[in-house]
Amino acid sequence: MNTPVVVRQVEQPPAGAVATLEKCGVTTVHEAQGRCGLLAPYLRPIYPGAAIAGSAITVTLPPGDNLMIHVAVEVCGPGNILVVSPTSACSDGYFGELLATSLRAHGVRGLVIDAGCRDVRSLTEMKFPVWSRAVSPQGTVKATLGSVNVPIVCAGALVEAGDVIVADDDGVVVVRRALAEEVAVAAEQRVQTENLTRERLARGELGLDIYDIRQKIAQLGLKYL
Amino acid sequence: MNTPVVVRQVEQPPAGAVATLEKCGVTTVHEAQGRCGLLAPYLRPIYPGAAIAGSAITVTLPPGDNLMIHVAVEVCGPGNILVVSPTSACSDGYFGELLATSLRAHGVRGLVIDAGCRDVRSLTEMKFPVWSRAVSPQGTVKATLGSVNVPIVCAGALVEAGDVIVADDDGVVVVRRALAEEVAVAAEQRVQTENLTRERLARGELGLDIYDIRQKIAQLGLKYL
Amino acid sequence: MNTPVVVRQVEQPPAGAVATLEKCGVTTVHEAQGRCGLLAPYLRPIYPGAAIAGSAITVTLPPGDNLMIHVAVEVCGPGNILVVSPTSACSDGYFGELLATSLRAHGVRGLVIDAGCRDVRSLTEMKFPVWSRAVSPQGTVKATLGSVNVPIVCAGALVEAGDVIVADDDGVVVVRRALAEEVAVAAEQRVQTENLTRERLARGELGLDIYDIRQKIAQLGLKYL
Amino acid sequence: MNTPVVVRQVEQPPAGAVATLEKCGVTTVHEAQGRCGLLAPYLRPIYPGAAIAGSAITVTLPPGDNLMIHVAVEVCGPGNILVVSPTSACSDGYFGELLATSLRAHGVRGLVIDAGCRDVRSLTEMKFPVWSRAVSPQGTVKATLGSVNVPIVCAGALVEAGDVIVADDDGVVVVRRALAEEVAVAAEQRVQTENLTRERLARGELGLDIYDIRQKIAQLGLKYL
Amino acid sequence: MNTPVVVRQVEQPPAGAVATLEKCGVTTVHEAQGRCGLLAPYLRPIYPGAAIAGSAITVTLPPGDNLMIHVAVEVCGPGNILVVSPTSACSDGYFGELLATSLRAHGVRGLVIDAGCRDVRSLTEMKFPVWSRAVSPQGTVKATLGSVNVPIVCAGALVEAGDVIVADDDGVVVVRRALAEEVAVAAEQRVQTENLTRERLARGELGLDIYDIRQKIAQLGLKYL
Amino acid sequence: MNTPVVVRQVEQPPAGAVATLEKCGVTTVHEAQGRCGLLAPYLRPIYPGAAIAGSAITVTLPPGDNLMIHVAVEVCGPGNILVVSPTSACSDGYFGELLATSLRAHGVRGLVIDAGCRDVRSLTEMKFPVWSRAVSPQGTVKATLGSVNVPIVCAGALVEAGDVIVADDDGVVVVRRALAEEVAVAAEQRVQTENLTRERLARGELGLDIYDIRQKIAQLGLKYL
Repeated sequence: MNTPVVVRQVEQPPAGAVATLEKCGVTTVHEAQGRCGLLAPYLRPIYPGAAIAGSAITVTLPPGDNLMIHVAVEVCGPGNILVVSPTSACSDGYFGELLATSLRAHGVRGLVIDAGCRDVRSLTEMKFPVWSRAVSPQGTVKATLGSVNVPIVCAGALVEAGDVIVADDDGVVVVRRALAEEVAVAAEQRVQTENLTRERLARGELGLDIYDIRQKIAQLGLKYL
Repeated sequence: MNTPVVVRQVEQPPAGAVATLEKCGVTTVHEAQGRCGLLAPYLRPIYPGAAIAGSAITVTLPPGDNLMIHVAVEVCGPGNILVVSPTSACSDGYFGELLATSLRAHGVRGLVIDAGCRDVRSLTEMKFPVWSRAVSPQGTVKATLGSVNVPIVCAGALVEAGDVIVADDDGVVVVRRALAEEVAVAAEQRVQTENLTRERLARGELGLDIYDIRQKIAQLGLKYL
Repeated sequence: MNTPVVVRQVEQPPAGAVATLEKCGVTTVHEAQGRCGLLAPYLRPIYPGAAIAGSAITVTLPPGDNLMIHVAVEVCGPGNILVVSPTSACSDGYFGELLATSLRAHGVRGLVIDAGCRDVRSLTEMKFPVWSRAVSPQGTVKATLGSVNVPIVCAGALVEAGDVIVADDDGVVVVRRALAEEVAVAAEQRVQTENLTRERLARGELGLDIYDIRQKIAQLGLKYL
Repeated sequence: MNTPVVVRQVEQPPAGAVATLEKCGVTTVHEAQGRCGLLAPYLRPIYPGAAIAGSAITVTLPPGDNLMIHVAVEVCGPGNILVVSPTSACSDGYFGELLATSLRAHGVRGLVIDAGCRDVRSLTEMKFPVWSRAVSPQGTVKATLGSVNVPIVCAGALVEAGDVIVADDDGVVVVRRALAEEVAVAAEQRVQTENLTRERLARGELGLDIYDIRQKIAQLGLKYL
Repeated sequence: MNTPVVVRQVEQPPAGAVATLEKCGVTTVHEAQGRCGLLAPYLRPIYPGAAIAGSAITVTLPPGDNLMIHVAVEVCGPGNILVVSPTSACSDGYFGELLATSLRAHGVRGLVIDAGCRDVRSLTEMKFPVWSRAVSPQGTVKATLGSVNVPIVCAGALVEAGDVIVADDDGVVVVRRALAEEVAVAAEQRVQTENLTRERLARGELGLDIYDIRQKIAQLGLKYL
Repeated sequence: MNTPVVVRQVEQPPAGAVATLEKCGVTTVHEAQGRCGLLAPYLRPIYPGAAIAGSAITVTLPPGDNLMIHVAVEVCGPGNILVVSPTSACSDGYFGELLATSLRAHGVRGLVIDAGCRDVRSLTEMKFPVWSRAVSPQGTVKATLGSVNVPIVCAGALVEAGDVIVADDDGVVVVRRALAEEVAVAAEQRVQTENLTRERLARGELGLDIYDIRQKIAQLGLKYL
């Protein structure tokens, strides 16, 4: 049943694929893997312009209690992204500038949390990116256990330790570790296709023609007046 | 009954009135026409500082399906603003940087959408303004028809093709085409009145005196302790 | 029972304590007074970077009616922060650039409102900070009374005239006037403690050790795999 | 522009069509007219089992102010349904048992309101049906004008005086007056078709076969494992 | 500052006034005391038909932790209503049938909680009324202190121990203990006035005449077409 | 990557465990398995009193498109519960009385859907229970594929085909198939323990004593005044 554990060892995704996914960005990656893996759009970055990818360290913990984030720091390492989800909806400020300092000291690239964070001015100044559902000064206690590196649901998406998290101004998407290379290839191809499409659209060509939609809308019965 | 159509010809509002409405801004225009025509405040600009006005091209379409935006591009032209509303609440990313490239190639000034958009970083860099209810990488399909340039309700307001849309950091307001000139005149007058009021307030005069409210609050029975 | 009044005289909090609380910021102050007094996190600043503290002037008023804000200006003075709460949930734009001009002429430092504000671009340019639950051009009438400087609940927190309001990018917190000095001392101590903790965390020490949590999580039964 | 008016004369929809639409119910009517005209699903009946149709009397009014409902009663008559929408979002209790008593005395069949109502126990006992977005004891003032029998947007749908409102446990839909007979015929046909489909489904036949979907899903590429 | 305490002794409101307030109901009481004291309308009864009044026992506690409800039971007695508010928004099921059994054994009449409850079927069968913001099976821990019988804000309203809570199908209102008798008298008068008004409205008289509004709307400029 | 599939064969959970879990109810099962597996509390039953358990058939599908529910019926059988989740938030009425007739003909016990349903009066009369996030007459199209019996996230919880779904007035919980027997045993034990506790509480004993909390709250520093 449900007992609190910390899984120390996490298999890492291939670094090259992670770099490609970061470069391609959330929207392209999401399309490239068949429109799945999206975390709910209520997760927003605390400042614009951040764009990262990394291997997930997962944390499940109670509402209003950040004890397990402190536990998780010890198993984090370079290139990780911390992904935190409370067991019931909570907007409290689980995370601030001190924890960011600690995570950065261990090489962590950012935080995705289905709850609140605080110290957003300091986090912005130190360029530690956070995607959260709220900003709230409301502190948390350190009283009750949860788990680290077990599969969690964060903002409506299943995330397993070692999955690739991609996060930017559009939101957050998760790519299964085993699919990271395949999705990275598909994402790069998509970028190239879009480059060609963009040029044609910029010249005034219509999507109706580029995507070959005219016949379809006629068959569906669209009338022009 | 409700059959999918595209209306090609849209009567345009007078260009001078549109320019005046853009200059006066949403809040002033909303007041000038008697506090009506506001789109719900959950529509927010994806970046600060944009301020536009233009003639509406309207699109109604299903949740999770942007086929009709591609259809609409063909009937857009210089000075238009695309106004899109799904038939039921949806936060999906119907619109991104490729569609913006296409719209810009046809002279469209911006987008108002009662749903989500994506590629916000690119849209910000290319300065294509969007007012949306969400940012979401969630893509859409191209499977089902809707209509273009029929009257729609967008974010709680009735919008007809050729109405003037005014959008800035405060939100979005619609002005009926036939009233555009009358509202533009009223808005300019309001700006002048406010300039005078601002000077008096800046000198420390009280709204209680400028608006002549003292007698009213006494009659209503306000007590000072 | 509930009759409309304006209380003219408000006892002010000690200026030194207010300055200290402003410097320490919302999150630290909230922790320092024992995690209470927070206004709900749906109140957000209209632009980033503002950070103020001041003595509250309170206003309770009806939905869609800003008559009492005009009444309140007369009893405002240097160092005040206006705190406004409607008697039922409302997102209308009670407040804009003209009222900000008036408040500034009387020395008021900012506004906290559990409703909407408008003219956000002008307010940003004039650096008049507002924390609100919405941005909305929807205007209000001046028809019905409320009260000024009576105790109110704003965004879920009790605020009395003369309490200290602290507001920054993290949100808004209220400190009882009588506790301002005590909380200011505690907040400064907390800043110093955090400075030491930050250094240790930056060197890679773990919160598990700094906060001495290892024994506790072992007792609670956490298992490492 | 926007000036307060009361339109006394409203053309009524054909009584036979209204009776048919009431019998067919909201979901069937909505389908029969091509999936349009739905009011947002946050409008809920205050008690289960009510199912009515009638000709709309429309009211637009300010937040927190029910003056115009009192004005509207005078122009209501037998078979009408009152449709009320505030100019900005408001959950106040605009309507209770006294107003219901008054409306019933004039033959009105029910209320649809994009705001709150109160006295729900009395309304339930007297079987006066209300579809509202909230139940709230919060009273309203009688200070500011609005309009009666002008086109309004209520819960996201355009409603004009004399349109047919159909409301039941599923929600609320509006049918344009001019289309009432056509939609009524289509709705009755739909009921008959559904009766046949129901029998086949009850015998265990599959929708895949009845709706002839198997070929389509094969073409779209669905794989069975 | 904010330290956890339990206040054992609470001054009780006059029993006669409580009985009158219960009989008059939430909406009438709210009007009678000048439209104040309402708890937010998102608090809903878990079953229809309950209508109680009683003296408040207040509880403030952390999100996801119901330790203090167990503490509060000991200081409850006949005629009390338990009023519970977490320090940050939480929908967890703090309360179920076992706690209701315990409260009933000590004479408590019901619960008002700005969070979730569970076991709603059992609570309905035993007719123990609860007004909550959610129904959720999510359990809570017993790890962290809060306070009992200190002033709290519950669903946006200030509640002090010994205040009168009135709750029914319309919602929940609080009456200051010191005002209970005065409000009870005003509420009874209001009931009598409404009885007369109801008779007139039932005969078809208009609110326009009964409330003498015709002159006002003419002055405000309402036009009839 | 993400391709549409239907998994025909699903391993079923042990029937005895399912029966026990149904009898124990959602809240008890949720506690018994360590407070995990809860679907978000915004899922509500369309009528009170339903209480079922069964083996999950899972469906993931696009917003506004119920094609895959029709596909899923074919792989449903006696004792199943259909669990449906759209790929992005949607309140449309995917499901009504015709589909319920079809499911019942194949032995399905109920539906859990993170979207809307309709025909609630008919569903109530035929006693086909549905837990949904909305009631909406808004119909859906049949245009785009999804998958059946792949792992899905529904209302924030991971559900795999063959997992046990337990649903009643409190909400919905999922129990992993492999843990069903273990959790059933724990749930029954919990029921027995609660029976003893209930008797003691009914006699007036305090939870403080039964759960042995007094020492803990003293250690934590609670003060009685």
